[in-house]
Amino acid sequence: MDGVPRDSVPVSDRGLAYGDGLFETIAVHNGKPLRWEGHWRRLEAGCVRLRIPLPDPVVVRAEIDALSAGRSRAVVKLILTRGPGGEGYAPPLQPEPLRIVLRRPWPAFRREALRLRVCRTRLGNNPVLAGIKHLGRLEQVLARSEWGNEYDEGIVLDVNGAVIECTASNLFLWSRDGVLRTPALDGCGVAGVMREAVMETATRLGIAVRVDRFGLEAVETAAGLFITNAVTGPRWVAQVGPWHYPKPSCMEPLCQGLEPAGGVSG
Amino acid sequence: MDGVPRDSVPVSDRGLAYGDGLFETIAVHNGKPLRWEGHWRRLEAGCVRLRIPLPDPVVVRAEIDALSAGRSRAVVKLILTRGPGGEGYAPPLQPEPLRIVLRRPWPAFRREALRLRVCRTRLGNNPVLAGIKHLGRLEQVLARSEWGNEYDEGIVLDVNGAVIECTASNLFLWSRDGVLRTPALDGCGVAGVMREAVMETATRLGIAVRVDRFGLEAVETAAGLFITNAVTGPRWVAQVGPWHYPKPSCMEPLCQGLEPAGGVSG
Repeated sequence: MDGVPRDSVPVSDRGLAYGDGLFETIAVHNGKPLRWEGHWRRLEAGCVRLRIPLPDPVVVRAEIDALSAGRSRAVVKLILTRGPGGEGYAPPLQPEPLRIVLRRPWPAFRREALRLRVCRTRLGNNPVLAGIKHLGRLEQVLARSEWGNEYDEGIVLDVNGAVIECTASNLFLWSRDGVLRTPALDGCGVAGVMREAVMETATRLGIAVRVDRFGLEAVETAAGLFITNAVTGPRWVAQVGPWHYPKPSCMEPLCQGLEPAGGVSG
Repeated sequence: MDGVPRDSVPVSDRGLAYGDGLFETIAVHNGKPLRWEGHWRRLEAGCVRLRIPLPDPVVVRAEIDALSAGRSRAVVKLILTRGPGGEGYAPPLQPEPLRIVLRRPWPAFRREALRLRVCRTRLGNNPVLAGIKHLGRLEQVLARSEWGNEYDEGIVLDVNGAVIECTASNLFLWSRDGVLRTPALDGCGVAGVMREAVMETATRLGIAVRVDRFGLEAVETAAGLFITNAVTGPRWVAQVGPWHYPKPSCMEPLCQGLEPAGGVSG
């Protein structure tokens, strides 16, 4: 925490009081954080949007490297809050952001043939909060609380019925005409680091990518589906409720094209 | 914190990680919390919505009484988080909520003839989070950061242009035909404890109350405006940007009818 080993946060911190902050969940592989540039870019975008001063990238990277050292696989979480102070909602004029880095063991997860549900919980639309990974994630918590272990993930729609993402992953559709589609995230949702990497890789491989708005009928009629997350990499979705899907033919070249190979989900 | 004097929160707490919790900001007058039943009712509604186990009301009230004792005026904040645990967004099956009560000095604020701005920041609509006072308040933080001391409050609209509330207060319009209007909060906004008290008092006094949806044109053409907050009580708004308003004639009977008198804003 700000470079000091601690396990608690001052009760005056605005991250706790108002969700006034951002976070990143980073895969560690062979002692190194993966896709660091992507994580840093999103954190930076979030800081600009929320007007939280960006910490020194060298300091943060050094702290994350120190937590990653010697771990073949782990997950590092970076939390950046606006710190203490201000008057009620009014942020302090000179914020002193709080920086937290913490390490967790590599989680267990199913690698392919995932079963998804469609969540009842919807996402509200607000462009000012869309795309960034801020600390106010109650919609995701409520959506995720709709099931226990009987599904691997849940598709979440916005309040207008547009497909947006899964609770902790982004969603890709492989359409019957060979286009990779993923929902636009200008109203809500989190623009995942692995989502960016997959889109870049697809474009490099000559796979057409379309970012747009669609409903559940596009999911029902897709040739295939996969979801992405910075820790798990791309994972084939075999089932959404009553609908079944073969493994999308684009996944093998995409996973091979991703650096490091396959997003290190194996 | 859970009855123990502490000034920091475990970094694993879901209130910090995801805004997974609720809060209440309670006025203390002559050693007693004001409108405790209203605060407790809203906290209870939030717990039901978020499926957070409700703490023992006797224990919480005793902690708040202890912090209030001997204070002629103060503010007590109650935070209730889902506590630690769970797996990512998935809440733990047996949550151990964290209960925080803290006291602040009575704030300085202008009592009447308030100047308001109309905020650029909008509120997203999501019925599942509307009305309750959850910890994810970034929209309010961004709206409040639009000004410094040049205004007393800011009116916030939703993304569709409906008037909803102010950043930390609810809004009432006194219409030219003698009706008290306040925005419906079924899509977004916080249903204030003082808002409830004002509506109850108005109804008791035979003043017609209408909870509905309206835009800024209704604010422009109102006979008068006031805002409410559990700490400040009802306060006359004299100005919204270029529009000026006399003190609404309903305010005196309303403030006299409120128990304790005037919401103890004096």
